[in-house]
Amino acid sequence: MANVNRLKERMLRMAQIGKTENDGVTRLALSGEDKQARDLFIQWMEDLGLHVRYDDFGNIYGRLEGTNSNEPALVIGSHLDSVPKGGKFDGVLGVLAALEVVESLMENNIQNDRPIEIVSFTNEEGARFTPQMLGSGAVTNLFSKEYTYSRSDNESHTFKEELQKIGYLGSQDNRINPDDVDAFIEMHIEQGPVLETNNKTVGIVEGIAGFSWMEVVIAGETNHSGSTPMELRRDSLVTAASVIKAIHQWAHSRKDGTAATVGEIKTQPGIMNAIPGTTTFTLDVRHQHKDGFTSCIDEIREVIKETVHEESLTCDINEIKTHPPVTFAKSITNLLEEASKKHDISYHRMTSGAGHDAMYMNTVVDTAMLFVPSIGGKSHCEEENTQWEDIEKGITVLYDTVKRMSNVNQKQM
Amino acid sequence: MANVNRLKERMLRMAQIGKTENDGVTRLALSGEDKQARDLFIQWMEDLGLHVRYDDFGNIYGRLEGTNSNEPALVIGSHLDSVPKGGKFDGVLGVLAALEVVESLMENNIQNDRPIEIVSFTNEEGARFTPQMLGSGAVTNLFSKEYTYSRSDNESHTFKEELQKIGYLGSQDNRINPDDVDAFIEMHIEQGPVLETNNKTVGIVEGIAGFSWMEVVIAGETNHSGSTPMELRRDSLVTAASVIKAIHQWAHSRKDGTAATVGEIKTQPGIMNAIPGTTTFTLDVRHQHKDGFTSCIDEIREVIKETVHEESLTCDINEIKTHPPVTFAKSITNLLEEASKKHDISYHRMTSGAGHDAMYMNTVVDTAMLFVPSIGGKSHCEEENTQWEDIEKGITVLYDTVKRMSNVNQKQM
Repeated sequence: MANVNRLKERMLRMAQIGKTENDGVTRLALSGEDKQARDLFIQWMEDLGLHVRYDDFGNIYGRLEGTNSNEPALVIGSHLDSVPKGGKFDGVLGVLAALEVVESLMENNIQNDRPIEIVSFTNEEGARFTPQMLGSGAVTNLFSKEYTYSRSDNESHTFKEELQKIGYLGSQDNRINPDDVDAFIEMHIEQGPVLETNNKTVGIVEGIAGFSWMEVVIAGETNHSGSTPMELRRDSLVTAASVIKAIHQWAHSRKDGTAATVGEIKTQPGIMNAIPGTTTFTLDVRHQHKDGFTSCIDEIREVIKETVHEESLTCDINEIKTHPPVTFAKSITNLLEEASKKHDISYHRMTSGAGHDAMYMNTVVDTAMLFVPSIGGKSHCEEENTQWEDIEKGITVLYDTVKRMSNVNQKQM
Repeated sequence: MANVNRLKERMLRMAQIGKTENDGVTRLALSGEDKQARDLFIQWMEDLGLHVRYDDFGNIYGRLEGTNSNEPALVIGSHLDSVPKGGKFDGVLGVLAALEVVESLMENNIQNDRPIEIVSFTNEEGARFTPQMLGSGAVTNLFSKEYTYSRSDNESHTFKEELQKIGYLGSQDNRINPDDVDAFIEMHIEQGPVLETNNKTVGIVEGIAGFSWMEVVIAGETNHSGSTPMELRRDSLVTAASVIKAIHQWAHSRKDGTAATVGEIKTQPGIMNAIPGTTTFTLDVRHQHKDGFTSCIDEIREVIKETVHEESLTCDINEIKTHPPVTFAKSITNLLEEASKKHDISYHRMTSGAGHDAMYMNTVVDTAMLFVPSIGGKSHCEEENTQWEDIEKGITVLYDTVKRMSNVNQKQM
């Protein structure tokens, strides 16, 4: 069994690094706080005698050799960076749960055939350097080295400069090699209310919803707010309001898990006493099913265009980024389910609406994720929280699954 | 008769000061450009032999004595400052039309009994120093000297510093004294589409709509856009969209000239992949009738609250500023109408939706305004434009009215 108290102790120790006033965490990627967290994490791994290395993107690995070190490794982990004023569970839980699982296996003298590697990926949040999941995307060759190195923060510091500055620019030879990896498992907080609402303790994640990010620009006509009668207006914000309602209504009525969110909005000229001539807003659409993904995105674009057309204005819809749905390895989700059943832990098979490093790892190796509930569905905020009893059950499932998968014959339980 | 060509020449000369790329004007109050415009305006008045002075708020006056200089003066004018990338008519027209009327009266040897004063008020636009109409508000004692002097721009320069810097901090003794003023007339572009839509050449302005400026804050709950199912959301922007549509619908259906505009909007946290927990927007409501004003404002507050309540969120409505409707002097609007009829110039009796210096002057002396059409209703933009033929007709009405009012017996026409 894994030791939830030791995990809790480490989580709370880690939460001191970048701690905010309201008990949250600000630990932006490649910041001084990130360096402290990395140093501590490496210290803990070295204390266990693991072989520690980091690659040219700053992704950190701790390797426990197995009896058969030629076998492809089982990789487990997540990330240590946070959003500004984020919580103390997002990412860290997956990294330190991996560490706890390895320490427990060693303590219990469970002999692993295949090597086990703990990983912490760089800049998962994308809060400092866009895009998100930069470290896992780079190491799986989805982002080129040039692209990754040249990403810059708000103060024009590049990823490479900052990686060098904190002393974590390692060798390309240290990258994870998909040929030497059997599978990847990431434990994470759900960041949504589904487990809590369904009263389940662990989420067995079968995949990640596809998403399309767009910018919608609605063009009307600006004029003085006092001297332009209502019947002579072409107010872009009033039409944007119709569109926002139509988008919400559309996603809500599909009842297939499609989610659509307008997160940012601005008007031009954007002053109290002028009718907004232009309104620009972002749209984030998520859909779980590979089959229906493209038609789902086409459909929402039509809903927007028709609504704007009905009000006789014009619009542009600019695609920012699109990623199709991801399906995880059934072989792993089945093992996670078996472990849950064995320990009588209630579980829910589900899709993740949010992106994770597992999304990119899945492009090169068999991958799955394990969720534990987020209280009130909250994350990316200081109130982010998860019950320690739920974490204990989650780590029990992870421990059992890792134990089983690290045995090449996968027969012991 | 007044000379529209001379007026046009001066208008175009003035439009060179602060001229923008697209033939607009940026001449912020108390800027270097404003100083240039003031210097030129004063030069023109001195060339005519007018007695020029400026007061401790930088309001500039040019006085033509009458045969009976003990009579209260007739004051005509407007302002020389502009918004950023504004047009070349807003304000300047009223100042230079006043100058043209005076020059024409002198040229035509029309002897005025009462003195005529041309005025240009400081910082009408409020684009550099808030609030709007600072010079006219200060000289009519609606704003204290301390308040006015301490207003500061985006770079923390105060009104007083900047007034001193351009050399226009005059003596308090030079202020206009309401006891010595008979009436104030301001000619201005309409800044709206009413005259154009009604195919009329001049607007005889009977008053200014009252307004209430508010900030509406709608509180929902922020959560991750990917991992929060549609049915579990409390999206403040979706409710704000309902409210914006309800506000528009409400104002539109009243059919009494009430105008309501949401000009600025922002969400929090305001990122692509988070449900907006809070949405804040401004609301500008205008209503023309003194009787219905308070109940109109109460009504829209109820519409907002009910709409938010229906969607089970909460809201705060914070008043920023409220000013009741203003009614101008019938004695003057009647004279403007008579002059229009006499010259067979089509006119429209109307209310101004926008605020003007005349609003504050009206608190101390009999006041009225004269509008000429804005092409496409546009103003506060580089495309702001008015036909010179319309300006010619406008100045004809103004000339006749000033000629008549500056004769104490008001009998000649």
